Amino acid sequence: MNTELLTSLMHLPVKKVNGFSCRSNTDALAVEEPLEICIEYGDAADRTTKNISVTMRTPGKDEDLAVGFLFTENIISDYSNILTVKPTKNNVIQVSLQENFTPKLSQADRNFYTTSSCGLCGKGSIDAITTVSSFKNIDKVEFSVSVETLYQLPRTLRAAQNNFENTGGIHAAGLFSTQGELLLLREDVGRHNALDKLIGAALSQNWLPLNRHILLLSGRASFELIQKAAMAGVAFVAAIGAPSSLAVELATESDITLIGFLKENRFNIYNQTRNIKITGINEN
Amino acid sequence: MNTELLTSLMHLPVKKVNGFSCRSNTDALAVEEPLEICIEYGDAADRTTKNISVTMRTPGKDEDLAVGFLFTENIISDYSNILTVKPTKNNVIQVSLQENFTPKLSQADRNFYTTSSCGLCGKGSIDAITTVSSFKNIDKVEFSVSVETLYQLPRTLRAAQNNFENTGGIHAAGLFSTQGELLLLREDVGRHNALDKLIGAALSQNWLPLNRHILLLSGRASFELIQKAAMAGVAFVAAIGAPSSLAVELATESDITLIGFLKENRFNIYNQTRNIKITGINEN
Repeated sequence: MNTELLTSLMHLPVKKVNGFSCRSNTDALAVEEPLEICIEYGDAADRTTKNISVTMRTPGKDEDLAVGFLFTENIISDYSNILTVKPTKNNVIQVSLQENFTPKLSQADRNFYTTSSCGLCGKGSIDAITTVSSFKNIDKVEFSVSVETLYQLPRTLRAAQNNFENTGGIHAAGLFSTQGELLLLREDVGRHNALDKLIGAALSQNWLPLNRHILLLSGRASFELIQKAAMAGVAFVAAIGAPSSLAVELATESDITLIGFLKENRFNIYNQTRNIKITGINEN
Repeated sequence: MNTELLTSLMHLPVKKVNGFSCRSNTDALAVEEPLEICIEYGDAADRTTKNISVTMRTPGKDEDLAVGFLFTENIISDYSNILTVKPTKNNVIQVSLQENFTPKLSQADRNFYTTSSCGLCGKGSIDAITTVSSFKNIDKVEFSVSVETLYQLPRTLRAAQNNFENTGGIHAAGLFSTQGELLLLREDVGRHNALDKLIGAALSQNWLPLNRHILLLSGRASFELIQKAAMAGVAFVAAIGAPSSLAVELATESDITLIGFLKENRFNIYNQTRNIKITGINEN
């Protein structure tokens, strides 16, 4: 069996809230980092290097990922098309193709990106994202949210999101007031689409920046979702699922309060900004 | 509250297997379809139309999606940049921008695609995908899988996938023999990456086509995952989560047996091909 697993877990400090008490702990998060896949092709006298894709992935088995991606995208048609597969620098992997093989670049010319609009696209740094939001330097709004309010959010979302029960397959993004009132809800099979729909609706209604609200994500919090939240000036993100390592990093750099694994009686605090207070918790 | 929900559910015939019995039923699936987002810009004498993105989304609130996407990608910076937002044809939405506004197309020039490598990219039809696989016309291999074997797969995957328990945030793709032996396992924060890693590893070992195996997906089965499976000649896909409508459609067109919601004592059959027999079930 070939099931060697990735070792890409990152242990981060976290505050675990359970009921009304809170203790400091560490949490193992899945690492998420961009990987650039490029190919080298052409005859010996004239080799060309071309970036094909940037994907947000968990490091480990990057060679498999590059080969599988080129194959499932039909850029290569056989393993024998490949000369070598190797990392050229951190988070860049280069697939060198046989001289006599012409990659099907009509597929790649569109220069697609394998995450939904990750925004990194070769810039290779989350700095490039955090400078983009026009709300980055606005004054922070101070507000409090009670722990009871947070515990009610998932149930409120589920009650409004009746499609989920029918299909088990629809993500939601919900915008709540600090009192736990659901203001806006959007659904989609793609979590990034659900959030784009919500932000588009909020923008149309002139609600941005969303700095007096709680954004609830029905699933996991990836880098791209935090990026979108930062663009909309969101101050508080709550995810029912796990965040990735890069999501926590971006939330910290973007001064966003981020909680994860929000259930009806517990959650983890991954980043807490000074302007937001969560009330009703006793620190142990 | 603005929580009008999408009505994009599709009711498909399905066989529900529970324990050792099976009955025909219908199942509500989330609809998944491509949406092309394009912008129109320039002064009145010289308007340009440009495709910005194709995303696999659930229909509904497409205007919000287009506006939110353009904003979170920083192509527009304010709602006032927009003149109109309207569908121009089925699954295409056009955002017309103010004459005096220059969209930040350096962001868009890369022509990104919002799903992970959906492969559609303007072709607008799943025909374009199904013709691509070099394994499409190979002879089908006949095999049987017992229902007990299927019920064991999720547990086998979880036991091998010990990172999931740690982080709650890692997807897996597992390749099994028809006897339920785990042959290959790959993990990633991105489900498409986990599958690309698995297919890349299988390709490197000259295992393709994967037409005597069961591919188990730890989460939902989207269109793009079935597309990747089809590229690798996979004959049997089992998902622990829900499939999307387009995933079922593509599995049917690609002659892939697809089961979903696989738990330890039940699953749904969305498509069953003639070459594959699931044994141990009594049809009611």
